[in-house]
Amino acid sequence: MYDVAIIGSGVAGLSAALTLKQLNKNFIWFGSKKLSYKISNVEKVTNYPGLISVTGKEMQEVFLRQIREANIEITEKQVTGVYQMTGSYSILCGQEMFEAKSVIVCLGVESVKPIKGELEYLGSGVSYCATCDGMIYKNKEMTVFSSSKEFEEEIEFLSEIASKINFVPLYKDAKTDFRNTEVISGMPTEIKREGKKMYLVFKDKEIESDVIFMLKSAVSPAVLVPGIEVDNGHIKVDRACKTNMEGLFAAGDCTGRPYQYTKAVGEGNIAAHSAVSYLASLK
Amino acid sequence: MYDVAIIGSGVAGLSAALTLKQLNKNFIWFGSKKLSYKISNVEKVTNYPGLISVTGKEMQEVFLRQIREANIEITEKQVTGVYQMTGSYSILCGQEMFEAKSVIVCLGVESVKPIKGELEYLGSGVSYCATCDGMIYKNKEMTVFSSSKEFEEEIEFLSEIASKINFVPLYKDAKTDFRNTEVISGMPTEIKREGKKMYLVFKDKEIESDVIFMLKSAVSPAVLVPGIEVDNGHIKVDRACKTNMEGLFAAGDCTGRPYQYTKAVGEGNIAAHSAVSYLASLK
Repeated sequence: MYDVAIIGSGVAGLSAALTLKQLNKNFIWFGSKKLSYKISNVEKVTNYPGLISVTGKEMQEVFLRQIREANIEITEKQVTGVYQMTGSYSILCGQEMFEAKSVIVCLGVESVKPIKGELEYLGSGVSYCATCDGMIYKNKEMTVFSSSKEFEEEIEFLSEIASKINFVPLYKDAKTDFRNTEVISGMPTEIKREGKKMYLVFKDKEIESDVIFMLKSAVSPAVLVPGIEVDNGHIKVDRACKTNMEGLFAAGDCTGRPYQYTKAVGEGNIAAHSAVSYLASLK
Repeated sequence: MYDVAIIGSGVAGLSAALTLKQLNKNFIWFGSKKLSYKISNVEKVTNYPGLISVTGKEMQEVFLRQIREANIEITEKQVTGVYQMTGSYSILCGQEMFEAKSVIVCLGVESVKPIKGELEYLGSGVSYCATCDGMIYKNKEMTVFSSSKEFEEEIEFLSEIASKINFVPLYKDAKTDFRNTEVISGMPTEIKREGKKMYLVFKDKEIESDVIFMLKSAVSPAVLVPGIEVDNGHIKVDRACKTNMEGLFAAGDCTGRPYQYTKAVGEGNIAAHSAVSYLASLK
């Protein structure tokens, strides 16, 4: 069992990881080995103390070097659920289960709110994770909604196993030349199900398929962590980054504005210290 | 009148200044042109995101370069009082007065608590600021208590104008060869006054002089900002770094643990954003 699980590899997660490493805790860090896709696309950051007028790419490079030199590993798995047990947490990644005494969630902020029916059918016709659930729908027709360029590798993967892809990109300059792929334009408003078929509903059309992948940069906290208290889309925390669930902390954009790197690293640091205090209280 | 006054040049103040500059606000920043004496003495920082295993000196150099390149000025004056007026704040530096619509206090954390009588006689026989009040006591006998090496330049200045200095250093390897200076060892417990004479009281002796300078790295928030709500020595703030006084924000070690650079820069950023929201609400 891990002392702490950090979920999310934005700068809040990074800050928490550096502090837990320094405090010699046994932790697992879920996220992308590239850290955050968002950072690398930022043009210029001028108000981060210590990094003088850097591009997002330069910032990302420094951060990657820092975790390499600190010997910190990122576990590249998509967390699909965090469940409170007695005195610990179970973290589900597709079919795999991990256990930790405490959790720090750094989910970032949702740019795309769930549409009608999305949460209702999540796990039964709707999936957030291409690599987790893709193989279940091998040789079937898939509808893939994506909010960001970062998912194109996953869509590539799906296109290799699907009989057909209906691709709904919600961003500019999307790659569209995947195998067996039809590009659908427009913003979906609802997800419906009839028998075994799923329908992504637009103003002027309905797209039928066997599964709908909703690939989004951030997942709604309430979906990922059943029982967590949310206020206006943000996780409710106090000054120590404590949530309403004992031993579960939150940091970064998911706790609210300002959406700033400096604020996020500060909270990652606070959450790590709070987790360590919590661990000490268990003894 | 300034939009914002930042008081304190530790990393929380730095972070607030960088963000206010980016947001194009008209602000004044009080502190030391060297930023923080404390930082330069830190051996190694390994958990600050973006600066890989730096010494305090290296960190300080980066920060100094950053404010130089951002064209940010530090006003090297010691703030001796912050007073809430109607819709603005008056900031007193010795005899000089500044005005700002809002204030961010980044006072650091007090390592030395006030002793008995200290606050009572502050301004009438006790002073926190050698450069502000030194000349008032020219050719008189001065007792100078100092908590840190950083004040040796100020003591040098006092020794040039005093008839005699009774020097009470509370740190190791103190410079002691000032002009007309007697070194007193021990920890004072009380300050008394009899007529025009001040007495610094020790367990085994009382040192008589015309004035007592208490030179300490951080000043008690309640002394500097009359009316501010303090909890266990820390300024009480909410998640937006708001204090109980409208338009007055606090950030960094003065708001409580963890005493970490990463936490402090996060709060400096938050406080700057909160000040900007407050300014917008005034319109």
